Amino acid sequence: MKSKAIFYHAGCPVCVAAEQSVANALDPSKYDVEHVHLGTNKARVNEAEAAGVKSVPALVMNGAAFHINFGAGIDALK
Amino acid sequence: MKSKAIFYHAGCPVCVAAEQSVANALDPSKYDVEHVHLGTNKARVNEAEAAGVKSVPALVMNGAAFHINFGAGIDALK
Repeated sequence: MKSKAIFYHAGCPVCVAAEQSVANALDPSKYDVEHVHLGTNKARVNEAEAAGVKSVPALVMNGAAFHINFGAGIDALK
Repeated sequence: MKSKAIFYHAGCPVCVAAEQSVANALDPSKYDVEHVHLGTNKARVNEAEAAGVKSVPALVMNGAAFHINFGAGIDALK
């Protein structure tokens, strides 16, 4: 069964680089990757925060948040 | 043709979590992932730094360094 991974971003250059390299490199046979733009989808900021996301870009998988470099703090997206 | 990705770490808990979730989730049909422990392989610290690694754990792929959360600064590994 595939696991779900969520890539949270805000469209920033750092986010796009992480998306194109890391998020898009995940094994599609193991992970379904959802891409969520928190800048245009503010309703999901709380969900991201609850999952441990403190900045974007971040990947939430296996129950943990993995921040990939630093594009913007989550407070800037509220 | 597969691309190479290098996962630099130092055996720290943050590193292990990133390795088990992110590094091990990369698509094996696209990437050959090398795992380098900079704590025990200090000869490769310079190489990591030259690739843009400022802290571990970090993944170098597609010519860029992606720092995943923060385990230790690279200066602490010299």
